Amino acid sequence: MKWSDTLVPTLRDDPQEAEIPSHRLMLRSGMMRRLAGGLYSFLPVGLKALRKVEAIVREEMDRAGALEVLMPAMQPKELWETSGRYEVLGDSMFRVQDRANKGMVLGPTHEEVITTIASHEISSYRQLPKTFYQIQTKFRDEIRPRFGLMRAKEFIMKDAYSFDLDLDAADASYKAMYDAYCRIFKRCGLRTKIVEADTGAIGGKWSHEFMVLADTGEDGIVDCADCEYAANLEKAERTVVQGTVFPNADAEIETVDTPGVWACAEVTKLFECDPLRIIKTLLYSIDGKPHAILVSGDREVNEHKLMRLLGAKSVDLANDTTIQKVTGGARGYSGPVGLDIPVYADLELQGSRGMIAGANDADKHIVNVDLERDANITAYADLAMVRAGDTCPRCEGKLQEKRGIEVGHVFKLGTKYSDAFDATYLDDAGEKKVMVMGCYGIGVTRTLQAVVEQCYDDNGILWPISIAPYPVAVLALDPDDEVCAKACADMCGELNAAGIETLIDDRDDRPGVKFKDADLIGLPVRVVISRRSMKDNSIELKLRTSDDKQMIPLGDAVSEITKIVNNLFSEMASD
Amino acid sequence: MKWSDTLVPTLRDDPQEAEIPSHRLMLRSGMMRRLAGGLYSFLPVGLKALRKVEAIVREEMDRAGALEVLMPAMQPKELWETSGRYEVLGDSMFRVQDRANKGMVLGPTHEEVITTIASHEISSYRQLPKTFYQIQTKFRDEIRPRFGLMRAKEFIMKDAYSFDLDLDAADASYKAMYDAYCRIFKRCGLRTKIVEADTGAIGGKWSHEFMVLADTGEDGIVDCADCEYAANLEKAERTVVQGTVFPNADAEIETVDTPGVWACAEVTKLFECDPLRIIKTLLYSIDGKPHAILVSGDREVNEHKLMRLLGAKSVDLANDTTIQKVTGGARGYSGPVGLDIPVYADLELQGSRGMIAGANDADKHIVNVDLERDANITAYADLAMVRAGDTCPRCEGKLQEKRGIEVGHVFKLGTKYSDAFDATYLDDAGEKKVMVMGCYGIGVTRTLQAVVEQCYDDNGILWPISIAPYPVAVLALDPDDEVCAKACADMCGELNAAGIETLIDDRDDRPGVKFKDADLIGLPVRVVISRRSMKDNSIELKLRTSDDKQMIPLGDAVSEITKIVNNLFSEMASD
Repeated sequence: MKWSDTLVPTLRDDPQEAEIPSHRLMLRSGMMRRLAGGLYSFLPVGLKALRKVEAIVREEMDRAGALEVLMPAMQPKELWETSGRYEVLGDSMFRVQDRANKGMVLGPTHEEVITTIASHEISSYRQLPKTFYQIQTKFRDEIRPRFGLMRAKEFIMKDAYSFDLDLDAADASYKAMYDAYCRIFKRCGLRTKIVEADTGAIGGKWSHEFMVLADTGEDGIVDCADCEYAANLEKAERTVVQGTVFPNADAEIETVDTPGVWACAEVTKLFECDPLRIIKTLLYSIDGKPHAILVSGDREVNEHKLMRLLGAKSVDLANDTTIQKVTGGARGYSGPVGLDIPVYADLELQGSRGMIAGANDADKHIVNVDLERDANITAYADLAMVRAGDTCPRCEGKLQEKRGIEVGHVFKLGTKYSDAFDATYLDDAGEKKVMVMGCYGIGVTRTLQAVVEQCYDDNGILWPISIAPYPVAVLALDPDDEVCAKACADMCGELNAAGIETLIDDRDDRPGVKFKDADLIGLPVRVVISRRSMKDNSIELKLRTSDDKQMIPLGDAVSEITKIVNNLFSEMASD
Repeated sequence: MKWSDTLVPTLRDDPQEAEIPSHRLMLRSGMMRRLAGGLYSFLPVGLKALRKVEAIVREEMDRAGALEVLMPAMQPKELWETSGRYEVLGDSMFRVQDRANKGMVLGPTHEEVITTIASHEISSYRQLPKTFYQIQTKFRDEIRPRFGLMRAKEFIMKDAYSFDLDLDAADASYKAMYDAYCRIFKRCGLRTKIVEADTGAIGGKWSHEFMVLADTGEDGIVDCADCEYAANLEKAERTVVQGTVFPNADAEIETVDTPGVWACAEVTKLFECDPLRIIKTLLYSIDGKPHAILVSGDREVNEHKLMRLLGAKSVDLANDTTIQKVTGGARGYSGPVGLDIPVYADLELQGSRGMIAGANDADKHIVNVDLERDANITAYADLAMVRAGDTCPRCEGKLQEKRGIEVGHVFKLGTKYSDAFDATYLDDAGEKKVMVMGCYGIGVTRTLQAVVEQCYDDNGILWPISIAPYPVAVLALDPDDEVCAKACADMCGELNAAGIETLIDDRDDRPGVKFKDADLIGLPVRVVISRRSMKDNSIELKLRTSDDKQMIPLGDAVSEITKIVNNLFSEMASD
């Protein structure tokens, strides 16, 4: 493809809208353009890369035995009412009315539709297992669309859904998708970290996320320095030490004046104690009802864990009115003693004695607290946010914090949707059973940009060969020179015939511009043909990732380039 | 692919929702399922056929030099206000509000987006011509979604847009797309009729539609029995005879009592005259203002022509109040004489004398009318609907009426959108010029179903080889027989390796069911392997379109089937 025949509008300067490297580079290299917040158009060269990601996804899904289908983006809202998600997804789902005033949604995902199909079309154990997938456009009304394709209002997902006879069979389907995902991301040239994850609004019993490690990632994750444990912060656990006994553990509660002192750092300073000795009491409104949540002084509450523990739909910090009503005291001085509402305490607090807590009275704390003796604890549970330095829940290693971009997510759903949509089958004894489901997503457009976020340098993108829009950039420095033009056309024609596409920079422009743009666009192999190189009847060959240049006789160019391209592919396979 | 590994939920009975053969067959053969009115899910086998249509479209677009892009379905409404189509498209366009209350639309087409891109990214004559295309999901809020994929709320279109230096260059781009469309539909096995068409809400100067002839088609078209002329009824012209002089042509107007007689058929009976002698006067409200439109007694007004002539946005028949106010008379007795509003007459009436018309007075007509003498005609123009039997506008042949399904549409747009979005370039003299555009659409999902509407018999679909989901159906009548199973697996493995995919009916079911389903699904080549055929170490081979069966030695099966499949392809090419 000649540069002059396609459209590659490279930009010299960083576009203002771009916040992270990959976003900046996708725009600067002319791969895509912003239409509006969270809405992007793919230009010809960017689309070619996207199609390669799609092709890899499709091949690996087919290889794993999944069946491709295509479901509508627009769905009747009744389906979402049946699953209970019409409410749960709230404003993040686009809602539309048709001209007959029927309520429709633009599906951010397709559990409702596929389970309806399975419910109607699958009736016998003989038809199971089945995994369906689609590569399809999704819509999500993001609060703050940003980072280009990372958080967009319209994006392409590969979503897959498995239907199985029972839990064991569902595990096998889950494993097949998990393995396919490993292959997909590897083939895309991505280094991913697989982490245990929260199941969120999708529901379900167990899930893993495929994370691309990047400082700009929106997800916090932790992993163990010593073992394989890794989890999304929303889900991460730690080994806790319980039953710490502090001085005066057996003494009665005493009230102490602590005027103006309520933040943990100040309280520890005042009492000259460890933050572990302090009970932090947070009041929440959970599904509209007040709850107290206790964690150690310098810990944060993990609201995802809270939501999961209580099966709650909404978890919000209580407002001042509620605090006043429930504790009688002022914000900052809440404490667990004497509360008449459900009180949940983090496991770390269990059995600890000699503690310090708010007095439910302004400017006062209580000391010598023994939760089991003095408070009415509804339950102890893992409710705290894990942080770097915590002990791994699997070994004695230390946990470390990282940032990641979620590119894939696999869920064991269980029967949440098959129950709701009556997706049942008759087993070999003629008995009616509920299908067990799994669901599996890959952000296809996000994956494309995540590759760039992981593969770039100061000069531009470093496309892995597998998804490079073209494997080879040909810089025709003297496009009007007849000898050069013929050499270029012949070589590219032969490469094309061998299945190796080239992007030929035939612009009437300075060499400097062409070299700069070639680096920016980041095709893996660069070939220069110029009057100078043709004096020796040669071309210059260079990889995007290396500074080494070689001169190759024109006659060997095609075989040499073919060899290099094949090598790049096999290096990826053996990574 | 084994039947048991995929999902082919064939139906024995016609689904109630299906109104036309192709819709019925797409459902019965398990290619797709209805989710809601105008919304369909493609199941695995149907999707394979759809992908083949897409691949043909993509190949021919690429071959024609068009560049593939991908634009968002969701678009800011301001773009549509700029083009003036936000209002024009009215309720047929889905509108959405995002959580920030920004108005968005779900694009039924992408002129606004692509012209914005061209306006920003193309600035020099050196970058032209360019044609962009995408294969993308569109939304349209149909008043009455029906006929399955024919008129759906969500559907896949290939839309393309050309940008050129000037009108001549735009003609060449139009021609390239026109030719590509001919190749695409031919490769899909469709017999299409290319007709001149109205440009409608898209706007523009000239357009052709690619019509699949079918009794169930929603579009009326006419073509000439003697020459190449063909047009959509909305646009169709005819040769008119003007200046017919009827008896008493020179006499003064006289009023005649015609109590209860107002329909054309009754008036001609009463006056014992030709319908040509009667002036039918219709009162319209055009963009809110009353107009009178005159046509011959038994003609219909073509409102599309009227709209085009007056550049009107809305054309509606006037209500009784307006009729009373404008004519002073009753509905059915309107006439052209004495009207004080714009009066447009069909060309056929020009110069005719001795005519009969309504008297603008209940139960009265006037006779001896000479429009030029007696009425104040604003203009004569082609305003009548053409019908079978009319004379061709190009030759002396007779026109005939047919029904068609519009599968493709090519438009010369001119500068409507490039003016609105300032899509300009600097020419070689450095002068600013406006790009000339064309736009080109193919209903991809509609095309798929149109193939079925043209290719079926009493027993099911007759897929053309080019878009058959699988070229070969293999009926394993004794799937549990080891010899048969091995023969089947070996043969299908070899065919697969040769690039010929098979759908193997391995169900534990009666042969009758398998034969019936094979006919229903309509794969071009049918192979039967059974204990009986294997006694002679043979398979049975049959084409879906023929009753001839042949027994083929197993050893020759792969080469024989390969030959047949290749033959079917080359027959299509030479059609």
